[in-house]
Amino acid sequence: MKPINIGILGLGTVGGGTATVLQRNAEEIERRAGRAINLLVASVRDLNKPRDIEHSKVELTLDSASIVNNPEVDIVVELIGGTDLARQLVMQAIENGKHVVTANKALIALHGNEIFAAAQSQGVTVAFEAAVAGGIPIIKAIREGLSGNQIEWLAGIINGTGNFILSEMRDKGRDFASVLKEAQALGYAEADPTFDVEGIDAAHKLTILASIAFGVPLQFDKVFTEGIANIQGIDVEYASELGYRIKHLGIARRNAQGLEMRVHPTLIPHRRLLANVDGVMNAVLIQADAVGPTLYYGPGAGAEPTASAVVADLVDVVRALTSDPENRVPHLAFQPAAITNIPILTMPQVETAFYLRMQVLDQTGVLADITRIFSDHNISIEAVVQKDRKHDQDSVPLIILTHRVLESNMMIALEKIEALKTISERVVSIRLETLD
Amino acid sequence: MKPINIGILGLGTVGGGTATVLQRNAEEIERRAGRAINLLVASVRDLNKPRDIEHSKVELTLDSASIVNNPEVDIVVELIGGTDLARQLVMQAIENGKHVVTANKALIALHGNEIFAAAQSQGVTVAFEAAVAGGIPIIKAIREGLSGNQIEWLAGIINGTGNFILSEMRDKGRDFASVLKEAQALGYAEADPTFDVEGIDAAHKLTILASIAFGVPLQFDKVFTEGIANIQGIDVEYASELGYRIKHLGIARRNAQGLEMRVHPTLIPHRRLLANVDGVMNAVLIQADAVGPTLYYGPGAGAEPTASAVVADLVDVVRALTSDPENRVPHLAFQPAAITNIPILTMPQVETAFYLRMQVLDQTGVLADITRIFSDHNISIEAVVQKDRKHDQDSVPLIILTHRVLESNMMIALEKIEALKTISERVVSIRLETLD
Repeated sequence: MKPINIGILGLGTVGGGTATVLQRNAEEIERRAGRAINLLVASVRDLNKPRDIEHSKVELTLDSASIVNNPEVDIVVELIGGTDLARQLVMQAIENGKHVVTANKALIALHGNEIFAAAQSQGVTVAFEAAVAGGIPIIKAIREGLSGNQIEWLAGIINGTGNFILSEMRDKGRDFASVLKEAQALGYAEADPTFDVEGIDAAHKLTILASIAFGVPLQFDKVFTEGIANIQGIDVEYASELGYRIKHLGIARRNAQGLEMRVHPTLIPHRRLLANVDGVMNAVLIQADAVGPTLYYGPGAGAEPTASAVVADLVDVVRALTSDPENRVPHLAFQPAAITNIPILTMPQVETAFYLRMQVLDQTGVLADITRIFSDHNISIEAVVQKDRKHDQDSVPLIILTHRVLESNMMIALEKIEALKTISERVVSIRLETLD
Repeated sequence: MKPINIGILGLGTVGGGTATVLQRNAEEIERRAGRAINLLVASVRDLNKPRDIEHSKVELTLDSASIVNNPEVDIVVELIGGTDLARQLVMQAIENGKHVVTANKALIALHGNEIFAAAQSQGVTVAFEAAVAGGIPIIKAIREGLSGNQIEWLAGIINGTGNFILSEMRDKGRDFASVLKEAQALGYAEADPTFDVEGIDAAHKLTILASIAFGVPLQFDKVFTEGIANIQGIDVEYASELGYRIKHLGIARRNAQGLEMRVHPTLIPHRRLLANVDGVMNAVLIQADAVGPTLYYGPGAGAEPTASAVVADLVDVVRALTSDPENRVPHLAFQPAAITNIPILTMPQVETAFYLRMQVLDQTGVLADITRIFSDHNISIEAVVQKDRKHDQDSVPLIILTHRVLESNMMIALEKIEALKTISERVVSIRLETLD
């Protein structure tokens, strides 16, 4: 069969990795796809920068729009990032009847509904495996591998930078700020780390996962997001003593009331596989009604891991070229007409367990006051641990693990507890999930 | 679109689970597939046995052949197991131009080459996701999710019974025979446990994984297989003290000389995610050139987990119904013409590290004799641990971990060591893989 010509928008880290993998593994890819995937043209910001790819075979241009409008290009690969120019180029490619492959999580999370509607009406595919969890074929697993299931919930470590920071804090007893600095020096974290440590990047990915798992539209603005910047070493240590690890999780869960979508630091039992995913690695755990729990693990970022997902999408698109658009895998896993708007729950409506740490005066009756407030608000306690007093303090740390509780109840209870005269600081509260 | 009619051969554990999942999740499946999957007819051994499915909607028959020849049936689902009747029925279905979905690992491992050739010439698909690792979409992950990669090696816990036994031996310090008895009582192990504990079941699955990962024909007879029946509690314990777990792994590795395919007990470092896969769960770790390591975890058996894979295959086949057969995902991941016969290595040609336990007389010069033999055969030692003498013995256990070594060298060295007068028993040797 004749080769398929592709054009890449943006030869940065991922674009360069994709070009490298397409060239190095050309034979292996053709043995699988049954035809060659030929990188015809790529857009760059600097024509003279030295690159690893074989130049003689690839035309470079400064003009991304020329690729999107090039009649020789069968598939456009968008790897420039951002949401303005990328959106404009992707929409133009679709309008020109071209299939698109993208690694752009922000683009899909924010503009996916519009993009997929346009693709649908043009009969083209927009593939985005690389947008979530890098090289892990998680989109494919959920969209195709679990298609016989009702998915109950999923929980993922979907930001490598955040996981690296929390892993280092636990392994080496270091504090957040110093690990962040190291992550920046190692190139794991950006100079502006907001997207990673505040959970925005994870929220983009969770938006996509929730949509394909539950058949709802993409709704980034409804994801609750809490970062890891306030996690203290002492809580990482106490969690560890109690048999838990703190992970920055993206969680989507369907219940009778609606759908939860939330990104926040979470204690999970240390024996869970997810608790043992360390460093910059990603993993997603999915609970579904027929299969039960399945977990997918791998590198969530980096040039070649992301390129692996981009190339897999290219092979998929190539295979679907002659297929009837009606029979293709739908963009968001469910047929467009079957996507339903179920209510997205706000945090007060969500049920989770909690890890609480409070500084209490070491006197009788304190614990009684606290437990009465909890029982008044239907909060049942799983464990209480009083730590030793440090020599320079007149209060002692009290750690409480609760069972699952409606978050609105916990908020009221914590307000009342903080009003007690025997409590000397704000209560530290971190959500806890047993993942069973 | 009009519903697709399927017929199931065999309503046993997996067949019953598939019928249940198809009925319970009918709406969810149709929302994804865009059309209903209708269970028209199923063959059973006893028409009067009470079943969980809604009878009114499904015709039951004693005659499997009638399903294969029924012009109303679009897809045949083979779940009767075994390799004789199953093969005959599957070949007949293919000849009749029907697509087939099967969970039958022995059938694919032993007769897959012939079956896929027939399917290819008839333009139909034979899907077999459920044949390996139950509900984990591992066939899809390798065949489609990693299609841009050259796969370097894979290592899997692909038999739940064996993993349950080894997990219990470690967790509870029990011996093989007593755990096997419990596994049989729990229904995890068959009355005749040979297929599971001798590694034959794992070898069937490894045959399939190796073929789709490396583009070689299915060659079950070339898989080296060693079971877990000889694993002693004392070695599980010593391995643990040294920071390792013993797992029954299926390993396929490509190197410059050819392809290794082997199933055997293996020490792996306890910090690896794979080492923490316990009980009846399965997991497959894959090392590929672009993506690096990815791991896939989930239930490897059971009615509904296996049904999950069967239904996913059904949805895939339904989607491909109108597609050009040339553009479908090839059965063995690579285009039939691109499947190549690379040499399969025998065990003497394989390189692994080793855990060795020997009983040595507690006298000077013993260790010098042993290390000289090793160095004569290019075997380098990673660690030596001498355990305390037990009060009733005049020899002491000596544990040696080696670096990677050609197995033929190790065999000669062990023969020489066992000939030493200071060695009182056969040397226990278990292969060790660092999986990095």
